[in-house]
Amino acid sequence: MNIQNLDRLFNPKSIAMIGASANPRKWGFIILLNILKGNYSGKLYPINPREESILGYKCYPRVADIPGKVDLVVITTPAKMVPALIDECGAKSIPFGVVVTSDFSETGPEGAALERDVVARARKYGIRLVGPNSMGIFSAKTNLHAKMPPMMPLHGNISMFSQSGNVGVQMLGWGAEEGVGFDKFVSSGNEGDLNCVDYLSYFGQDEDTDVILGYLEGIDPGMHLFPVARKVSRKKPIIVFKGGRTDSGGRAAATHTGAMAGESKIFKSALRQAGILEVKTSQALLDCARAFANCPIPRGNRIGIITRGGGWGVITVDACEENGLVIPPLPEKIIKKMDEFLPKYWSRGNPVDLVATIAHDPYLDCLELLANWDSIDAVIALGAGRRAPKYTYSKEVTGPQPLVDAIHMVEQYFKDRAQRRDWMLEGIGKLIKQTGKPIIVVSIGPEALHRSNLYEFQVVSYPTPERAVRVLRQMYKYRRFLDSLKES
Amino acid sequence: MNIQNLDRLFNPKSIAMIGASANPRKWGFIILLNILKGNYSGKLYPINPREESILGYKCYPRVADIPGKVDLVVITTPAKMVPALIDECGAKSIPFGVVVTSDFSETGPEGAALERDVVARARKYGIRLVGPNSMGIFSAKTNLHAKMPPMMPLHGNISMFSQSGNVGVQMLGWGAEEGVGFDKFVSSGNEGDLNCVDYLSYFGQDEDTDVILGYLEGIDPGMHLFPVARKVSRKKPIIVFKGGRTDSGGRAAATHTGAMAGESKIFKSALRQAGILEVKTSQALLDCARAFANCPIPRGNRIGIITRGGGWGVITVDACEENGLVIPPLPEKIIKKMDEFLPKYWSRGNPVDLVATIAHDPYLDCLELLANWDSIDAVIALGAGRRAPKYTYSKEVTGPQPLVDAIHMVEQYFKDRAQRRDWMLEGIGKLIKQTGKPIIVVSIGPEALHRSNLYEFQVVSYPTPERAVRVLRQMYKYRRFLDSLKES
Repeated sequence: MNIQNLDRLFNPKSIAMIGASANPRKWGFIILLNILKGNYSGKLYPINPREESILGYKCYPRVADIPGKVDLVVITTPAKMVPALIDECGAKSIPFGVVVTSDFSETGPEGAALERDVVARARKYGIRLVGPNSMGIFSAKTNLHAKMPPMMPLHGNISMFSQSGNVGVQMLGWGAEEGVGFDKFVSSGNEGDLNCVDYLSYFGQDEDTDVILGYLEGIDPGMHLFPVARKVSRKKPIIVFKGGRTDSGGRAAATHTGAMAGESKIFKSALRQAGILEVKTSQALLDCARAFANCPIPRGNRIGIITRGGGWGVITVDACEENGLVIPPLPEKIIKKMDEFLPKYWSRGNPVDLVATIAHDPYLDCLELLANWDSIDAVIALGAGRRAPKYTYSKEVTGPQPLVDAIHMVEQYFKDRAQRRDWMLEGIGKLIKQTGKPIIVVSIGPEALHRSNLYEFQVVSYPTPERAVRVLRQMYKYRRFLDSLKES
Repeated sequence: MNIQNLDRLFNPKSIAMIGASANPRKWGFIILLNILKGNYSGKLYPINPREESILGYKCYPRVADIPGKVDLVVITTPAKMVPALIDECGAKSIPFGVVVTSDFSETGPEGAALERDVVARARKYGIRLVGPNSMGIFSAKTNLHAKMPPMMPLHGNISMFSQSGNVGVQMLGWGAEEGVGFDKFVSSGNEGDLNCVDYLSYFGQDEDTDVILGYLEGIDPGMHLFPVARKVSRKKPIIVFKGGRTDSGGRAAATHTGAMAGESKIFKSALRQAGILEVKTSQALLDCARAFANCPIPRGNRIGIITRGGGWGVITVDACEENGLVIPPLPEKIIKKMDEFLPKYWSRGNPVDLVATIAHDPYLDCLELLANWDSIDAVIALGAGRRAPKYTYSKEVTGPQPLVDAIHMVEQYFKDRAQRRDWMLEGIGKLIKQTGKPIIVVSIGPEALHRSNLYEFQVVSYPTPERAVRVLRQMYKYRRFLDSLKES
């Protein structure tokens, strides 16, 4: 079993940066800059025998010259230099290393031999290594940005391991746009030493991690993914996106990481038994992360729907039924209560269709009745938190003064409605806490809208009903897994 | 056969607006305002016996008082007044009407009887009606915005009919954010007279329409959808999103429109034989619209992929294989050419993985070789047209001057790269014209990015590879339909 405490790897008190460079074209410069610009909270020792200082920070010729203790070494030098450097780190008793350097096993037999040498030396000294060929690591607690790309993730309660550096770091950047925050991230690279199951196991114990994301390409049976996952998933959800599911995809994966890929029915069934939630698209990985990190898990698959227009209600119902969610009929008791404040021809059923009632007040009243209804486990709230529509035209309008005045009046009306949206979202946030049920908002609109819904009001929202439904389906799957543990 | 020339409906030279109101809470005020603010190019006659003028425009007491000819009447009065008004319009020889008024067949038997009366009178005078219970129509050529919501669609070459007003108008607004432009739109309402097949037939003949979108809930066999569609789809693609596919969805649709819904295998096979492309999500409808309206149709299903990182390439290959697209192996001739300018360890295959080569020049060189390769029909270009990553941090960085200088330097570097993106996209636009093959760009980023890719550079892009693949699958389906016509 690969249980390993990686606290000092992700939250080191001091870092040595071997390969620190004054040349802006080198990764040893860019990563150093990212660490500095990220306001890393610990001590940083750039190592470079040919420089006095880099970026205004004192340089040390070699690891042995560092005055204090070092928790983590980051290595970006050419591959051939790495084995000897590991010996130096061993002499300094450094417990963890991130080897960003590439040209190891991903390039062929020669690189593989070099990688085996590096790992063997590290093991001799008890150094645990990330990589080689890693794009680096991130940790929110220590503001650690020891990674190649400069984007800064949002801080949150999600941790991620990725067998593709590129996919991983782009998820961080994409998350920042959509309001999805991360606590820890690791690009596992060639996994010469530490592998994704080690990270999974650690994230499982880590108090700052509530949700675990993984991008996987190749899994070796010796990694014991399934027994580890089964232990972790009873405590927190594990959401995995698997690259190389198809024959062609598996071949492409083998080309770029050397890993064995492919996915069989047996593999899929093992995922399910281990409680791992598998998503099939990149968007679904981030969508699920957002909901699992911010919403209660529904008790079942019964969905209440509220909508301002029939068509979107129909689309949502179709998506629910196609994804194993059910839409219970609305009881007469609730229908009568809604009759009191809804227009004559409302749907009188679930979905609750307000028939273009655009004032906000009855919406929230209906939502409250719906969320408190015992026979549903989650609510999809269509058109809540909607923005003011853009009341702009291609050409300036010319016309009589009453027309110009009316246009200003309508513009003001939409501004006021945008403010009432805040009031609505506050109400929805309270309802979620009060009922313990997820209320997922759907409103067509750009990422910035959904980011603000989440960050200002703790309300999870998506631009289409189908994306909300897909997420609720995964949450229901997770609930069934948790329930199956109780039964056995 | 429902062939009908609806030119004067969509591009009227003059409109009478019955129910025009000075009360901002009435639709008769809002629609009038939308028409005026939209800069409608024809003559507009507000009708209201109790007002001298509305919004500074002279009012006429009744239709008979209008001095000139009227092509279109828009009606927003209460339902009970409509039959007598149709008689007045008949006396004035108005050929078309849009009945926005609701409380007809969607509310029960009484409303249905009233609707039959209205339609019978209209037929007597030869008036063709949109609705009742329509959210209105839009037409780019005459800047006609006779519709309830105030948003202004982008102008383009797509026309849409929708059996849900709400879904339809939100597609227009959503399209405006994503860069998808429309030529004509109609909310078909209860379809008391004109129905979606009439609009389909008209859009099929309409020179300004290149792509037809439809949101359907209920289809009556008497409408002859399939024979009409089969004639139209040989000339231009028809993309349909069907609400009420499931039992529960069908029941929800029946509640709000009274239409019979549901979808059988026979229905799906009829769609396919008629050349109608069916999408399964709201996002897919808009995604397909964007590509069909702006890209050449690929000759087949063979895809070339270019990527800056292996993982995204793997994800794209998986999505292709799962959607019936194939990834041919790269021939030695092209590999040798790419060897000349790519780093040593590039993938040497399809996907062409540039292995984190971030300069733009080799990307476009590779893309050119790929697009000109005879054995592929379309290219997915991952990470082309990428933006500068946000180089911003939560806290201001304090530190020595060399650090501050370096940060400025990197910021400038990213700004320069953002400019080189323009040059890349121009190159891609030229390649599409030169090769006649669709090149679909994928880059994670907000709607505004994709809108600008399309509007400034005529390049279609999506934020995920899965969305690009889904669109290419539909394009290939359409190609097979066109090929089947040649064979038979």
